[in-house]
Amino acid sequence: MIGTRLPVLAVDLGGTKILAALIADGKMMFKDYSPTHAVRGIHAVVKHIFEAIDRVIGQTDRDLSQIHSISIAAAGAIDTKNGIITLSPNLPGWRNVPLAKMVEEKYQAKTYLIHDANAAALGEHRYGAGKGVRNLVFLTVSTGIGGGIIINNKIYEGAAGAAGEIGHMTIDIHGPMCLCGNTGCLEMLASGTAMAREAIRLIKAGKKSSLADMVNGNIDTITAREIATAAEDGDFVAIAAINWSATNLGVGLVNVVNIFNPEMIIIGGGVSNFGELLLEPARKVVGERAFPYLAQMVKIVRAKLGDDAGVIGAEVFAKGQKT
Amino acid sequence: MIGTRLPVLAVDLGGTKILAALIADGKMMFKDYSPTHAVRGIHAVVKHIFEAIDRVIGQTDRDLSQIHSISIAAAGAIDTKNGIITLSPNLPGWRNVPLAKMVEEKYQAKTYLIHDANAAALGEHRYGAGKGVRNLVFLTVSTGIGGGIIINNKIYEGAAGAAGEIGHMTIDIHGPMCLCGNTGCLEMLASGTAMAREAIRLIKAGKKSSLADMVNGNIDTITAREIATAAEDGDFVAIAAINWSATNLGVGLVNVVNIFNPEMIIIGGGVSNFGELLLEPARKVVGERAFPYLAQMVKIVRAKLGDDAGVIGAEVFAKGQKT
Repeated sequence: MIGTRLPVLAVDLGGTKILAALIADGKMMFKDYSPTHAVRGIHAVVKHIFEAIDRVIGQTDRDLSQIHSISIAAAGAIDTKNGIITLSPNLPGWRNVPLAKMVEEKYQAKTYLIHDANAAALGEHRYGAGKGVRNLVFLTVSTGIGGGIIINNKIYEGAAGAAGEIGHMTIDIHGPMCLCGNTGCLEMLASGTAMAREAIRLIKAGKKSSLADMVNGNIDTITAREIATAAEDGDFVAIAAINWSATNLGVGLVNVVNIFNPEMIIIGGGVSNFGELLLEPARKVVGERAFPYLAQMVKIVRAKLGDDAGVIGAEVFAKGQKT
Repeated sequence: MIGTRLPVLAVDLGGTKILAALIADGKMMFKDYSPTHAVRGIHAVVKHIFEAIDRVIGQTDRDLSQIHSISIAAAGAIDTKNGIITLSPNLPGWRNVPLAKMVEEKYQAKTYLIHDANAAALGEHRYGAGKGVRNLVFLTVSTGIGGGIIINNKIYEGAAGAAGEIGHMTIDIHGPMCLCGNTGCLEMLASGTAMAREAIRLIKAGKKSSLADMVNGNIDTITAREIATAAEDGDFVAIAAINWSATNLGVGLVNVVNIFNPEMIIIGGGVSNFGELLLEPARKVVGERAFPYLAQMVKIVRAKLGDDAGVIGAEVFAKGQKT
């Protein structure tokens, strides 16, 4: 099939930015970043997507006949089969938007739509940290926590393409309410947002911290980014918040290990940039609490593809579909 | 393949009893129950298994050449590939016992070994509540909580055949310590044992209950069985313990729904005999907390095959293997 050698025009539609690129065999050409401007509404965002696609095509000497397909990774509740964004927390007002069809009609090119965490899982599995691993679970830890499950080398999508919401697994039945309506979700206890909330709590409880100065006293604006900087300088509150968050992440990973018995867990997303500061305490919890022989066989590693995982996985997904 | 028409000699090796039977296409012949006598040690139990197999063969007019294979379902950490019981909570002293090989050498018949909850999941999927369902999660709720995961019509076993330990998923990070070493496991909060513990706690806290009389004041001997009887008479403590347990089960099911997006969750095991008294509150929690469109599409139902699910699934497993 010569078609599978052609590049995919992949788009990662995020809440703040759109990344579009031409990708062949995991190699990216003509990366194009642009702002999503999500608040401008559906039609404006779709126009921004079209513009991003146009710019990528414009940079190449190809026309659309020399492209395998268009493949879009997006956050939210994605109906992969029908190419519909059912609901998206990052895209206000988006409900049942048939994005794949809209793009397909505009470009007359086969268009796929996939959940962004699933895409990232596929990307890491094929070209990143999970190469050659049969069963793995990918977690993206950033402002929220998303997940993608690879079983027998394929993405596991569930009944409606919505499987893998590992961030919305209750680990604390008495924990804080989550935006999703559930309580004590992993996302509420181990995301970058949760980490910042814990640091803010500690400072408000009277702990001294360089974080307060870093945000000019606007304590509520502390994010994981400031915590990373403060931790490098040995700030107590920063380190305590990271440990708290990493321990909670570890509890979530124990569940993943006991449920999936995976060969590997890959941690991606912005918070994974904390590296061993995050992974070491999380691994310790897994070693202490998960079934011992399952804990021994699971590798818990950082993702390798960074922000490119989504578009790279979108190519993998498109090429894996029967055309 | 004529071989697949032959019956399987299936054995369900439990901590208290052994069930052996000849099974073809989910239909059981010559059921044989006998006590496991687990305390007598490995060799005695293996002898009991041989005797059970001998009795089933003795009741038929077949010899072993007219049997597809022997297939054993057992609790614990099962290495399915190599037919080894790595560790079993129900069989004291069992560590790395190559049970499949021992049976195979004795009978010169191909012998399979599978985790009992996985077997039950396969049985329910092929012949029970889950017929025709592509992705489902099976939970057996009894003294403990076990699980089996069916993905794309196959049992998902993970890296070492140990996937599906849904009972050992933390749902309460500050909850009670579990025998497995983890804290706040679903099993500690929603099993029959947990339900009894809650009833005992309520009585010790001063709540009046007919349960105390039923066990002649030996409050610590209350089990789910007495709770079932007391609940029928409207006993407050019994009903409160069931609701508590069912609500916790519901929280576990929310996690299963958000992670797996399954078409169906099947609840088996002794505690499933509580029926709607258990399932109704659990479903309510799922409706309130899981992602709405996932909650809407999942059917939460009772298992249909009862105690036979393990042996019936052992047949399904054996017939699904490449011989």
